[in-house]
Parts: sequence; C-alpha cells; structure tokens
Amino acid sequence: MSFADATAVHGSDGHWKADIPPGWDIFGITNGGFLLATMTRAMSNETDGRDPISVTGHFLNPVSTGTVGIEVDTLKAGRTLSTLRSRMTLDGKPMVAATAVFADLDRPKHPSDLIVPTAPVFPPPEDCISVKHDPETPIPPPFTDRVDFRAHPEDLLGFVEERTGSPIVRGWFRLLGGEALDPFSVVLATDALPPAVFNSSFPLGWTPTIDLSIQIRNPRPAGWLQCQFTTRFVTGGLLEEDGEIWDETGHIVALSRQLALVPR
Amino acid sequence: MSFADATAVHGSDGHWKADIPPGWDIFGITNGGFLLATMTRAMSNETDGRDPISVTGHFLNPVSTGTVGIEVDTLKAGRTLSTLRSRMTLDGKPMVAATAVFADLDRPKHPSDLIVPTAPVFPPPEDCISVKHDPETPIPPPFTDRVDFRAHPEDLLGFVEERTGSPIVRGWFRLLGGEALDPFSVVLATDALPPAVFNSSFPLGWTPTIDLSIQIRNPRPAGWLQCQFTTRFVTGGLLEEDGEIWDETGHIVALSRQLALVPR
Repeated sequence: MSFADATAVHGSDGHWKADIPPGWDIFGITNGGFLLATMTRAMSNETDGRDPISVTGHFLNPVSTGTVGIEVDTLKAGRTLSTLRSRMTLDGKPMVAATAVFADLDRPKHPSDLIVPTAPVFPPPEDCISVKHDPETPIPPPFTDRVDFRAHPEDLLGFVEERTGSPIVRGWFRLLGGEALDPFSVVLATDALPPAVFNSSFPLGWTPTIDLSIQIRNPRPAGWLQCQFTTRFVTGGLLEEDGEIWDETGHIVALSRQLALVPR
Repeated sequence: MSFADATAVHGSDGHWKADIPPGWDIFGITNGGFLLATMTRAMSNETDGRDPISVTGHFLNPVSTGTVGIEVDTLKAGRTLSTLRSRMTLDGKPMVAATAVFADLDRPKHPSDLIVPTAPVFPPPEDCISVKHDPETPIPPPFTDRVDFRAHPEDLLGFVEERTGSPIVRGWFRLLGGEALDPFSVVLATDALPPAVFNSSFPLGWTPTIDLSIQIRNPRPAGWLQCQFTTRFVTGGLLEEDGEIWDETGHIVALSRQLALVPR
C-alpha cells in the first residue's frame, strides 16, 4: 500500500474519515507524523488546492489502528493564506488536534531569499545504514518497514552497538517504490527518525510527542530527503527536538520542532 | 497599568472577555505576544492551576484595541497534561487561534537534565540600549514604552545607524515597575523584540507573524530575561525566527519559533 493510499481520506464539508492501517507503528502506536499527514490531507481538501506552509499537531491520546473521524474547521480563508484546524477522533475520543496554514503566495514577488546555514554533508545513501524492522525485537519498530530510511553511519550506533553520546540523529528518507514526495510525506519525514536523545544517555523507549510544529518551504521536493534532528534542552522531563530537512540539491525543504516527554 | 491588569480576562466556563488596551501596539496593531498571553491566561483559568509548557498561536487578523471574546475548549484534561484550544474574536470576527498544553509534571522524577548550549553572554543591562517609543517616528513603536527592553549594543544599529548585516537581535527584557514575571509575560517576551531580519537587508516594516510556538521551561523566572532571536531561512516570502530566553543565572526559560511574512 502506497503512502498516498495509507493516508487517504474520504468525506466532504468538514467531515472526513480515514482508515489508519496497521504497520505504521512504534511499539503498537501509530507514528504521529503519519497521523498529522492524514489530517493535513483532510484539511488540504478544503483549501482549493493551496499548499501547506505550516502544520502543528497536538497529540492527545495514542492511536493504534481503525477508522478515525477528522473534523475540519476553516478559521480563515484569506487572499493569500488559509488557516484551518482539525480534530481526529476514534470512537468519539479526541486523539490529535491540528492547525495548518495553507498558502497561495506569489513566490516570484519575493526574490530576497537569505539562507544562513549550508546543507549538512552526509555520506551518500548507499553508504548509510538501511534501518528495517526486526520481528524479534521492538526496535527498529514496524514503521521502519514502510519507508526507506538510511541512517548516517556515525549516528545510529545506539540501535546496534554503542551510542555517540551526542543528541543528534541524521539520515536519508524517501518513500518506498519510487513514490513521489508531496507535502504530506514531508510532514511524515519530520517524525520518521528515531529520537535524537537515543544517541545520548536516555533509555531507548517510547518518547511521547506532545506537539509537533512544521514549516514546509518546499512542498514537492525531488529525490532523497536529507534529515537532521537535534535536541539541545532536556529539562524537567521535557525535551525539544529540532529538525532540518534538505533536498539532494542543498535546498531547505522543511523545519520542524517537537516537544516530547523524556523516554523512561 | 500593569501587564497583569492589561491582560486580565473575565468570564467562566469556556467564555471569556478581555479589553485590549491601547499602547501595546506596533504601527497600530497590538503585539501578537500580548494577545497570545491574554489567551493563555484565559485557558489557564480552566486548568486548575497547571502551568503552560507549550503555547501556539495562529494570527488570523490584526487586532487594534477593544473588547474581545475568548472561547476556550478543553481538548483533553489528563493526569499530567491538559491541552486546551481557544479562539479570540472581535465583533464576531476570528482574530487569533491558540492551543496550549498545561502540565502538572512531577519534576523531581526527572533529574536527567541535559543542556547542550551555554547561555549567551551579553553586556549587562546598564550597558545596553534602552529602546523607547519616539512619538515623532513609527519606530521604535509605542509597545516599547510598555516594557523594559535593553538592546544589545551590537545589534540594534538598524534602528539608529547602520545594521550589522546579521539576522540576529539580542537584549534584556523585564516588565516595568518591578512587576514579577509569570508564564504569560514569558509568552510576551518571545514576541517583544524587533525582528531579527531588521539587522540584515530587509525593510524596517511590518513583519506579520503567521504563527508562534513557545516552549516554556520555567514559568516564573526571576530578574532580567536574556533574549536572543535569529533567522536562518528566508525563502519564498517566508521566514522563521527562533528565540531562546535565559534567566540571569544561565538557565533556559523558553524556546520560541515563529513563521512570518518577509517585511515589505
């Protein structure tokens, strides 16, 4: 099943449904980026073809599988920006809340790009480590079989042998079978790698995302996505994880930040 | 009028009102952090005293002054986290949407703090530049008279003489008259400095915030707040601005990120 089919939504006029399929999970809980991508797809259907430039999700309860409802509410449909919010429910229980901004920006009017950092340099995907689910152990989780993720060889030692000690995780991401990337799969990519703190001294356990905010600067990147996630501040049981996603040509695709509970 | 009085809310059971007073504006538009602080205060009143750990606002329409309604909806009230969302309206028109997470985290259970960066070092507040409104010019705006902001002497040349060319803005922040900081004034602080791109080559004009996400790690810091905001990616007419707020003792207080339109 393609990612597009797995995140398909059905409905109209603010009332949508989706079937959350098995296999996109970590420890039996469906990946938050996958749920947020599905909700963004539902909201997108009510914007007359505008692309998401900002997506924020708040994760209320863990979702396994099943048919969820997605209620969509347009907060504002403006000349260049539309802001919508939505709520995913399962058996009437709220599971995820999301707000997204969709744009019809006249991009040629803004030639004044300014990019301070340069794209990170990774070994090519063929020299990275393909991470796949091992049915004998909970990690890597089933989710890793649904995407093509190649871990930077210096970073993913926590899964295999020793950790680096540095809260950073890097790798290449694409969909399986040559499926083209769209803004919804960019949302998925921002939550597709193992937590950066797995490379420091924290347990390799469930790291519940409280919320996740994404800025999408290129909704339809080509080729592999170069992904880098770092955590700088773990305090009071909370951590942030900041992501940068670049395309193969060194252009920024997305920025992300999540707030999560420290793994136990 | 204190900040607490200026952001006071009245109401109960999901229906609140606030009077947005004059003077907290930039070019006649009330500061977004001020509005978000007011909404956070309304949501906070429905959480049995929990403190906000995450606040996200989406700015739909500019607010000048007047009596606004704030509708609050509890998405989930859990054992340790409560998630609420709210909408600010003026004359029935939606102005701002916000979602916030409030916590009752048992902090002593999480001694495993990990802080990668160290606090930046600024000259002391008395050696920084007090920024105040000049009625003869639109910049600095009236808002600057409502707070005590001391700009880092290397950064604020764009207001005075030449710009640094580097999209960073730093300074000290506190409330006037010794008013103690609370989580709502921390929200204000994340949007209280001039845009970091004012120090690069962009116009010194209105820079509309699309959305603003804040992680609050210390809801009641003491003394001056040390604030640093940077922009790294200006693409397609959009920019992010990332903030770090530290207290005087070098502890992190808050992280923020906003998405804004490039000033014209």
